[in-house]
Amino acid sequence: MNLTPTSPIGIFDSGIGGLTVAKAVTALLPNENVIYFGDTARVPYGIKSETVVRRYAGEITRFLLKQDVKMILIACNTVSATAGKEVEREAGDTAVLNVIDSGTDAALKTGSVEIGVIGTLATIGSGAYEREITARNSAIHVISKACPLLVPLAEEGWTDNEIARQTLSEYLSPFLENSITSLILGCTHYPLFIPAIKDLFQERQITIIDSAESIAASAKERLTGLGLMNSSGTPGRFDCYVSDRPQRFQELAERFLGRRIDRVDIIDLD
Amino acid sequence: MNLTPTSPIGIFDSGIGGLTVAKAVTALLPNENVIYFGDTARVPYGIKSETVVRRYAGEITRFLLKQDVKMILIACNTVSATAGKEVEREAGDTAVLNVIDSGTDAALKTGSVEIGVIGTLATIGSGAYEREITARNSAIHVISKACPLLVPLAEEGWTDNEIARQTLSEYLSPFLENSITSLILGCTHYPLFIPAIKDLFQERQITIIDSAESIAASAKERLTGLGLMNSSGTPGRFDCYVSDRPQRFQELAERFLGRRIDRVDIIDLD
Repeated sequence: MNLTPTSPIGIFDSGIGGLTVAKAVTALLPNENVIYFGDTARVPYGIKSETVVRRYAGEITRFLLKQDVKMILIACNTVSATAGKEVEREAGDTAVLNVIDSGTDAALKTGSVEIGVIGTLATIGSGAYEREITARNSAIHVISKACPLLVPLAEEGWTDNEIARQTLSEYLSPFLENSITSLILGCTHYPLFIPAIKDLFQERQITIIDSAESIAASAKERLTGLGLMNSSGTPGRFDCYVSDRPQRFQELAERFLGRRIDRVDIIDLD
Repeated sequence: MNLTPTSPIGIFDSGIGGLTVAKAVTALLPNENVIYFGDTARVPYGIKSETVVRRYAGEITRFLLKQDVKMILIACNTVSATAGKEVEREAGDTAVLNVIDSGTDAALKTGSVEIGVIGTLATIGSGAYEREITARNSAIHVISKACPLLVPLAEEGWTDNEIARQTLSEYLSPFLENSITSLILGCTHYPLFIPAIKDLFQERQITIIDSAESIAASAKERLTGLGLMNSSGTPGRFDCYVSDRPQRFQELAERFLGRRIDRVDIIDLD
């Protein structure tokens, strides 16, 4: 396999949430060809065991490698937390980035010594952000909180109504009472709640870390380092594969990305 | 295969929700041996396409038949709505009951002419309750509403707090403004919200149809008719199979059922 700058970047997630990563990547790297895989038949991963998540992540990695991707971005916090090593092993020499490493990088750059992390049950239960942050700076205090209702709220479109605000107020109460100065959004759906979260902290200065933007920045840096950046000057293709409901995915994704998707195909990895 | 009164009843659901059916069945038919299958690796079904749900339902049916079940209860509204026929075809001569038929029976017995139905996106989107009710009495007016947040709320344990009440108030507002006299809970998780729902309707007389109780009553009637009721006088076994996280399932299920589960095994139907 001969990787070139025109080889695509592979991005995957358990469903549509990783489109926030795809959006950040195409905004920062508009010439890159992107292949997105959303496991819409088996979503959500956040409630599954590590064994099952690892198996699914392995299957998706092998699929992306067959498409000759030059880099894999794990756009799913649950996979990053529980199956990052599995993906790296399957990927061999192909570069793998994940949202947890990128979010950690961004949080450390703020200089905060008290960092909050919110995510799904699986991500928070894994302790991955906490482990990653304290491994790099043991003086930092990390406070984590699982917020299982936020994904269904986002998918209901309730991101800024009274129910969303009360739910956030309940989940974020540990952070309102302590002195965190950065908050990592450890789930790709959560950027939708940024306005409501900012309102909740009111005049308190808090840096919200959106891991979609962080991983896009890391991808640009790594591609430059590898000499694999696509600087062709023509807009890249955006091809999608899903495991269920391609039509619904295409509608949601085109609305969300504000651009045409070149193809959405259904594939069965079972 | 020789079905006898000691052959087990097979009950299945996409996850743990169908335990409300198992509980109603073991309460009404304490001598019956029960085999429960919860598809905990692939839950939830409510957001998947009909094609995928039918495939999963077929796999589970074949698994239950291998355990020589004398009857299959579809404890999942989504499967009942989208794959009931598939299960019946696979089951051949083995009796199949589903929560939608049983809930419809119970709703019709109330004599209501305005019936409300709440359920997941897939159940409501399928129009199955509406079709079933109006096929049997075209004078009845059915009003349906999908309530996608109720399952995650129930799994968060928030069934009676301010957030649950506001969510119910939002979802049930169409029913508060019209004159329904029965409300079908078209999802096995929803009985947990009965106290909050009753408060919402205040002094209005409304019959809440819990399809778990309805299907248990239908099962008793059918087994009697078939001469397959187990009247051994000894408490039946309760064996469970899941596709992921058996330990977590056992804890939740024993707490929920208030009884010991004889075994929980993990099986992979993929």
